[in-house]
Amino acid sequence: MAPSATTLKGQPLDKVLLEAMLKRRLFYTPSFEIYGGVAGLYDYGPPGCALQANIIDQWRKHFILEEDMLEVDCTVLTPHEVLKTSGHVDKFADWMCKDPKNGEIMRADHFVEAVLEARLRGDKEARGQAIVEKEADPKKKKKKAKSEAVKLDDAVVTEYEEVLAKIDNYDGPELGQLIKKYELKNPETGVLPSDPVAFNLMFQTSIGPSSNLAGYLRPETAQGQFLNFAKLLEFNQSGMPFASASIGKSYRNEISPRAGLLRVREFLMAEIEHFVDPEGGKKHPRFTEVEDIELVLLDRDTQLSGKTATKSIKIGEAVKTKLVDNETLGYFIARIHLFMIKIGVDVSKMRFRQHMANEMAHYAADCWDCELLTSSGWVECVGCADRSAYDLSVHAKKTGAPLLVRQQREVPLVIEEWQIDVEKKKFGPLFKKDARTVEGALEATTQEQREKLAKELSDNGKITLDVAGVGNGQVEITKDSIKIEFRKRTENVREFTPNVIEPSFGIGRTLYALLEHNFWTRASDGGDEARGVLSFPPIVAPTKVLIVPLSSNVQFKPNLKKLSQRLRGLGISSRVDDSSASIGKRYSRNDELGTPFGITVDFQTLQDQTLTLRDRDSTRQVRAEEDKIVDAIKSLADGSKTWVDIEAELPKFEGQEIEVAER
Amino acid sequence: MAPSATTLKGQPLDKVLLEAMLKRRLFYTPSFEIYGGVAGLYDYGPPGCALQANIIDQWRKHFILEEDMLEVDCTVLTPHEVLKTSGHVDKFADWMCKDPKNGEIMRADHFVEAVLEARLRGDKEARGQAIVEKEADPKKKKKKAKSEAVKLDDAVVTEYEEVLAKIDNYDGPELGQLIKKYELKNPETGVLPSDPVAFNLMFQTSIGPSSNLAGYLRPETAQGQFLNFAKLLEFNQSGMPFASASIGKSYRNEISPRAGLLRVREFLMAEIEHFVDPEGGKKHPRFTEVEDIELVLLDRDTQLSGKTATKSIKIGEAVKTKLVDNETLGYFIARIHLFMIKIGVDVSKMRFRQHMANEMAHYAADCWDCELLTSSGWVECVGCADRSAYDLSVHAKKTGAPLLVRQQREVPLVIEEWQIDVEKKKFGPLFKKDARTVEGALEATTQEQREKLAKELSDNGKITLDVAGVGNGQVEITKDSIKIEFRKRTENVREFTPNVIEPSFGIGRTLYALLEHNFWTRASDGGDEARGVLSFPPIVAPTKVLIVPLSSNVQFKPNLKKLSQRLRGLGISSRVDDSSASIGKRYSRNDELGTPFGITVDFQTLQDQTLTLRDRDSTRQVRAEEDKIVDAIKSLADGSKTWVDIEAELPKFEGQEIEVAER
Repeated sequence: MAPSATTLKGQPLDKVLLEAMLKRRLFYTPSFEIYGGVAGLYDYGPPGCALQANIIDQWRKHFILEEDMLEVDCTVLTPHEVLKTSGHVDKFADWMCKDPKNGEIMRADHFVEAVLEARLRGDKEARGQAIVEKEADPKKKKKKAKSEAVKLDDAVVTEYEEVLAKIDNYDGPELGQLIKKYELKNPETGVLPSDPVAFNLMFQTSIGPSSNLAGYLRPETAQGQFLNFAKLLEFNQSGMPFASASIGKSYRNEISPRAGLLRVREFLMAEIEHFVDPEGGKKHPRFTEVEDIELVLLDRDTQLSGKTATKSIKIGEAVKTKLVDNETLGYFIARIHLFMIKIGVDVSKMRFRQHMANEMAHYAADCWDCELLTSSGWVECVGCADRSAYDLSVHAKKTGAPLLVRQQREVPLVIEEWQIDVEKKKFGPLFKKDARTVEGALEATTQEQREKLAKELSDNGKITLDVAGVGNGQVEITKDSIKIEFRKRTENVREFTPNVIEPSFGIGRTLYALLEHNFWTRASDGGDEARGVLSFPPIVAPTKVLIVPLSSNVQFKPNLKKLSQRLRGLGISSRVDDSSASIGKRYSRNDELGTPFGITVDFQTLQDQTLTLRDRDSTRQVRAEEDKIVDAIKSLADGSKTWVDIEAELPKFEGQEIEVAER
Repeated sequence: MAPSATTLKGQPLDKVLLEAMLKRRLFYTPSFEIYGGVAGLYDYGPPGCALQANIIDQWRKHFILEEDMLEVDCTVLTPHEVLKTSGHVDKFADWMCKDPKNGEIMRADHFVEAVLEARLRGDKEARGQAIVEKEADPKKKKKKAKSEAVKLDDAVVTEYEEVLAKIDNYDGPELGQLIKKYELKNPETGVLPSDPVAFNLMFQTSIGPSSNLAGYLRPETAQGQFLNFAKLLEFNQSGMPFASASIGKSYRNEISPRAGLLRVREFLMAEIEHFVDPEGGKKHPRFTEVEDIELVLLDRDTQLSGKTATKSIKIGEAVKTKLVDNETLGYFIARIHLFMIKIGVDVSKMRFRQHMANEMAHYAADCWDCELLTSSGWVECVGCADRSAYDLSVHAKKTGAPLLVRQQREVPLVIEEWQIDVEKKKFGPLFKKDARTVEGALEATTQEQREKLAKELSDNGKITLDVAGVGNGQVEITKDSIKIEFRKRTENVREFTPNVIEPSFGIGRTLYALLEHNFWTRASDGGDEARGVLSFPPIVAPTKVLIVPLSSNVQFKPNLKKLSQRLRGLGISSRVDDSSASIGKRYSRNDELGTPFGITVDFQTLQDQTLTLRDRDSTRQVRAEEDKIVDAIKSLADGSKTWVDIEAELPKFEGQEIEVAER
């Protein structure tokens, strides 16, 4: 049983209330709203921007600094040829279909899903069952199709449910077949949509004044990292394994984005490319540090059998049983898990789902998504893919650049093998224009073939070889023009193309899930409507401390200034609210902004330099001299103490002024 | 006399040496180099990326946190309509001309400049004078045209010099006239280029699957901030003045970029939009804090008179004498100056140059560029423009959104004026379909006209009004359908559109200038070639501390790990280099990376926990216990102490091991 959408305190999540609050507090807002907006584009206002910056800051500490990754910043503009080679020009596409009647363009998988789900809802209605909202995937389902109360056969219900469980596994023609097989008509027009066609998701532009260099906005930050591989390896003084990392915007021209921050056309990514030797099982030197971490996994086979049941398992066990392919992949899955918890994700709303075969990107060998549960269902926030040697290989092949690792062998490798030497002086005149073709055919022979050819040569003084396209397809080569011998060869250097493990974070989706996971509502004393709170951990909270003077009296100004300067000196962001609203109102506003701590400056402060400190989550307060309060904030902000510790150390405060204000 | 290109220590700058070093240390590299690269696109490697992040971090502290600015993060993708309204679709262009013979596309101003400068060089040569390189503007001059030793008339020399001093002030047709007047032929083909045509610098794309929404990559971050003005004002609880700020990529499709990081097609900007009441002279509450700061200014009139002489002047004085238009503009110019010094710009290589009238962007009322001197001449790194109410007004007019400030008047404003009331019931039937046109004509009348109309109405019982397009162009209105009276009106609320002062930073250019300003070479003991050093201030240095074990002996590992964890806990970035190179080589490598401090862990460390600390700039060392060394690094990194202070506190070290290593 997966949990349904609730607040941090287990209350049913009132999404309308949350969204109104996020809008009011300007966490984010549709871009170009005064021009009517553009689907899939959002701007972050000050608290959203600070939250994003703090998530990125933690990400940099947790991944880049912790493991000395090499951070790079590559361009978004990318020439056609690069993305042609990487496969994105040909394969980075979604299937779309068009309603022939009203011209609506829809994502084919979303359409199939929406119509089947509507039929299942209608069936439940007809059977008089309560409709429990399936946790749909907001990446796919955009509009809820209207349902009619029509009872279906039990077998049909089962069939539909199985289709939905593996909806990500169908390609375009298969989706087209489903549309025809089940007669999936667009509920808005009553007609079948067109056959699905591929729509490339990259934004195209042209570079330079003569418009002859086609380019795209990158769909991922990864390619820039791959192209710089040789330089990065050198910068790393040839040390392996190592990782590069990049934080930056990427772009996907979504067909019809409608899910807020969860499906946008311009988004911030944070991507790691960890380069690892493919030999030796892709071990990771720090795997032992994480092997006992327990994760919730939803594997490929479970999904293909039409189920969504997860299992809780230690990552060490998952790698041992090959559920997760290798240590490096497992290491990063565990590190992602730890990061998510650190920034405030609700661990009961997190799972790792394995991609099914057809679902995987064209470059991936295995992939696990970190999914977070939101009011729109399970959302892929991080992909953790094993891209094997795919990217480095295709770019090396296309450009001839040596995107590989050369390692001195500790023990030279001695290879005994059949080798063929060509006597160029005789060989050339013998075959003339066909000489290279014949030589190519010789080189292409296997060890077994060479052994036979050697015998033939020694027995007959010549060999007969099939060479397509030369003469009648067979040539004779005499022993004066070639030698075939069994010899030893010593390799001192080993060359290999590293494999790539890629944890790839969608920062906007993670940020949105974080908003939902940390949201709850507090009953107000006065019987007004419940007030929203965002209980972010201090490390990601947009502002750490709210400083409120009792009133806008100028007497308080010097204290306010001194206090904010002192906090700034400690790297703790604060904001003064000296508006005329009541203290309670001002605190309430900052609960909505997720500010964890509040300091009140009142008339007593002017006499004895004491301050009250308020905890956002409990609304409880303590009072002490400035030094002690600042120390308390410092240890709360860096996580070395909790509010309970502080309450044990400093005197509780329940002064009248605040009581009045809290009304 | 402007200084010529020198290193931090006054040595002549060897640009080839510097560029080789920057490439070797992977500060930046051409993007897609293995595919042959794309002009104007660069990737930042690990040290460049860290340097950029540190500049941004300081920028955020110096500007955003210091003044509680509202940071926003808006999309790069921008629909056509927004940039049509802002004027960019029509006016954001450079003039380009084409060589009819070889098809080369050139920027017209760069072309004129290059050919005239070549003639002046040829003249000097013919006169037997030494050629002192003019500090050219790398934004414009791309290729140095070949010069022939041809003597010019003195009057012609003067004329050319005057043209060059105001080269930024010519538009396309004027540049075309200069080409014809002076017969400026392309030295490569010997023919005159075509007449200049405007080339829009925005990258175009289309948004959505049906390709019908044209969009651009933003050429500046400003528009997103303007469009959100009303929301930001509300978030700021209606407080004025206030500023928004944004850090993000912008894009300009440069015609033929050839100046490395100085002219690129994709670049990071940091922009502030400070919204100020246009009434009362645009005062700034904190201007007194900066008024005594002395700046080097190059004003508009000096340039128009064909000169480039600068003057040193206090910003307070510059504002008082109206050289700089207002306090807010002056405040930000001074704050930019302080920021540049803080991050390590050489103050002797910085000036503020005022734009000439034709040079200014279409939206600007006044503009001063912060220019930094590099080996490619003076480079515009920051623009500080007064955009007046231009942007908010055009967007408000286009969309009807109220992009304005409403302030309660402390004293209500009483206005006595002629007002016209229309009796709708009579007026409508009288003019039928023309009623609104006639009413519009009435509303458009001035106070003077109304006074006359009132008299005419009272004298004749009717008025005759010119209304273009209605009847014969004149209508009669009788006194039963309108009233015209002199009355009092009380305004309690004042509405105004704020003016915008915009400091706009090009981070890439600033970063490049910083590399040159902090570069110098140190003679090596052994007589090898001089070794490069980048003497960044610690706050922007990519890595603060290099930790080197004497050798790669495993005994040292625990100390290395402990030390880097301890520094990380203090927020000080460090890097361990346990490669097999000599200590001297390892320090030398990190001098090139600009790492200000080095710690050596040796066998004595294992015995007594002492460490040596090395200063990058002097290469001098001290030795003390770990705690003292860490404290020293902390105060050096936060700027509270200098190396001289540390040498006075801790014992000098000249141990043998290091002497050997430094060879």
